[in-house]
Amino acid sequence: MTTPKTKTSTMELMLQIGKQAKDAARVMRNASDEQKSKALKKMAELLLESKQQIIEANKKDLQAAKEKKLEAPLIDRLTINENTINNMATGLCQIADMADPVGKRSETIIRPNGMMVAKMRVPIGVIGIIYESRPNVTIDAAALCIKSGNATILRGGSEAFHSNQALGEIILQGLRAAQLPEYAVQVVPTTDREAVGILVTMTDYVDVIVPRGGKGLIERLTNEASVPLIKHLDGNCHVFIDKDADIRKAHAIAINAKTYRYGICGTMETLLVHHEIAPAVLPDLCTDLVQKGVELRGCERTRNLVDHIQAAQETDWETEYLAPILAIRIVDSLDEALDHIAQYSSEHTESIVTENLNSALRFQKEVDSSSVYINLPTCFADGFEYGLGAEIGISTNRLHARGPVGLEGLTTEKWVLTGNGQLRGQ
Amino acid sequence: MTTPKTKTSTMELMLQIGKQAKDAARVMRNASDEQKSKALKKMAELLLESKQQIIEANKKDLQAAKEKKLEAPLIDRLTINENTINNMATGLCQIADMADPVGKRSETIIRPNGMMVAKMRVPIGVIGIIYESRPNVTIDAAALCIKSGNATILRGGSEAFHSNQALGEIILQGLRAAQLPEYAVQVVPTTDREAVGILVTMTDYVDVIVPRGGKGLIERLTNEASVPLIKHLDGNCHVFIDKDADIRKAHAIAINAKTYRYGICGTMETLLVHHEIAPAVLPDLCTDLVQKGVELRGCERTRNLVDHIQAAQETDWETEYLAPILAIRIVDSLDEALDHIAQYSSEHTESIVTENLNSALRFQKEVDSSSVYINLPTCFADGFEYGLGAEIGISTNRLHARGPVGLEGLTTEKWVLTGNGQLRGQ
Repeated sequence: MTTPKTKTSTMELMLQIGKQAKDAARVMRNASDEQKSKALKKMAELLLESKQQIIEANKKDLQAAKEKKLEAPLIDRLTINENTINNMATGLCQIADMADPVGKRSETIIRPNGMMVAKMRVPIGVIGIIYESRPNVTIDAAALCIKSGNATILRGGSEAFHSNQALGEIILQGLRAAQLPEYAVQVVPTTDREAVGILVTMTDYVDVIVPRGGKGLIERLTNEASVPLIKHLDGNCHVFIDKDADIRKAHAIAINAKTYRYGICGTMETLLVHHEIAPAVLPDLCTDLVQKGVELRGCERTRNLVDHIQAAQETDWETEYLAPILAIRIVDSLDEALDHIAQYSSEHTESIVTENLNSALRFQKEVDSSSVYINLPTCFADGFEYGLGAEIGISTNRLHARGPVGLEGLTTEKWVLTGNGQLRGQ
Repeated sequence: MTTPKTKTSTMELMLQIGKQAKDAARVMRNASDEQKSKALKKMAELLLESKQQIIEANKKDLQAAKEKKLEAPLIDRLTINENTINNMATGLCQIADMADPVGKRSETIIRPNGMMVAKMRVPIGVIGIIYESRPNVTIDAAALCIKSGNATILRGGSEAFHSNQALGEIILQGLRAAQLPEYAVQVVPTTDREAVGILVTMTDYVDVIVPRGGKGLIERLTNEASVPLIKHLDGNCHVFIDKDADIRKAHAIAINAKTYRYGICGTMETLLVHHEIAPAVLPDLCTDLVQKGVELRGCERTRNLVDHIQAAQETDWETEYLAPILAIRIVDSLDEALDHIAQYSSEHTESIVTENLNSALRFQKEVDSSSVYINLPTCFADGFEYGLGAEIGISTNRLHARGPVGLEGLTTEKWVLTGNGQLRGQ
């Protein structure tokens, strides 16, 4: 593998990768589940056997990262150790053992003329994955795409180049062992940034792009891409504590929603509280959140109720902090909470805490987000937690897949009609 | 209503329409099926009562069309008569009586921690429809969008301006009678072409565009749109007569697939025939097709078998004629047919004629088109024929809806999780 330097050669390289992927997709579409699972299990075996080589390749990336003085969290995400490799291998086996989504037929409808109409689940085709520093995405994304019968083009971050190439070698050997096409998974062999711009506009060869990374990456791709993206930009998630909430549940859910992890997209960023229950809930809750190191920014009524809270600005309602900061607003009614969410939410994940059936049902029906919860913390927004087995990402698109996207989100449906010589108009 | 003349005012107008649609969508999302059906039935009633006014408005358009010397088929499509109005009213009642897709929940999965995970079907939001001369699309599209709980922006052809405005007035009265928002359906009140370019880029207000019209329109919109399109560009459909075909079925299916109507997207444009059965099928079939006025263009082997057939060029395999022309190719095997289809098909609708189970199943599995048939003519590609009740269009997109798109294709799914205070990581 070579690393072309000029733009022309990057263009040629990417077009060649695209053509190879499209050809491989035709074979992958018809691969048996046995073959696909065999490839994944072989990869798991090879990963465990090749720990030393992978860690050596990763060291090159870590060395370069340290020379470039990359920040500690980035280096942390970049690092592969024995444990990372064990986890990748376990993940591969789990995905291998999942049910194959391909070929499933919906219930068949018999039309009056006797012809049978059904839908069949099929792979999307060629999926491009663009991601940043975590090299384990190379294995996870390849596994999900193989299992769902797609061909994949993987473009990881330049800082993980050597790690990703080493993992790509494992994937290649797994595909070979299962007699699947070598180009079913291609790790782009160049760090040229131009390759990304080409990948997201190759509409002849690439059916969908899944970007995984920070907001900067997603914004850039949204502007440049002509291939559809399965993506979310913001996770400005809300929890609403209704007047009929159970106070202990409300307390625990709010703490968990904010502090389970600060940096994930399902983290609660604004807490809405019904004014009737606010005096009973907020003082203790705020004390506990501050004790956990969370900075609070409240509306005026919140500040009248609890001391030492900064005044929230308009921008606070719009912000996904991804940090130990929480905006708090007291509202007069469920309707006011719904209005606030309609105005500020990023349509990712919202939750109501209530014991009132009507409020719960109204909230779940009327909130127009990809996930809407009753009595659960928003941090549950994750494919594993939903029982999808694994996720390729989370989508706030309105078309195709919304919320956590698993194997099924990497497939589509075609119509299959079966007749016996029926004619139209006769 | 006014017809602004400057670009600035068209931009302002469209943004206002967009904002109004987005507000209306929030109300429509929660409208009951009773309300939605009531609106449609009221429209049907008003259509029948207002025949004279509608036909008067249509006459203005017909007058202008004659002055502009538009072609006869275009004037034909533009014309509204009593019969057209009766059909629109019947269509409205049929859509009103269909099951509401909104609010349906998938089967609920209970996770190990007891939380319940399901999907709920919900409207997409704001749907833009861009169409050409047929004014009945105004009623049909509005009805499908109302029933599926969406807000709609309708932009018909300038040649049908007065007809569409008159129909828009009926829709408005129907919405009012059912206490639905007036802006749930907006007929764009300007003929400025600029309005289309603005509509397809208003990503803040419009969730999806369904274009209905000729290839020129679709190509223009594909290039200009940043809002996702539900569309198909070509219908280059194939029928493959397998060696194990029933000769009588093959003959009837091929005739029907080509001659049911020449101008619809499901019309067969290329016929592939297995060489073993070609001598038994092609001579009679070609005679009958020619007798019906179909011009035949064949490969060399076809021309050796049947006299007076033009030689097919490479471009013939790529062409959607939408005319009484058919390309014919003899192939050596099912695999060669699959290869031909993979290379030239527009992934719209393909069919195999065979009595052989394995060939049938392979074809239906391996052909990567939005509809794949066994022993049926491709001209069945239509929402009514599939039992969808009506269709907003046909899609060859790979994401979201493929094939004929009915009510369900105008909806999407969100995740709904219900718990009792479960926490993550505990």
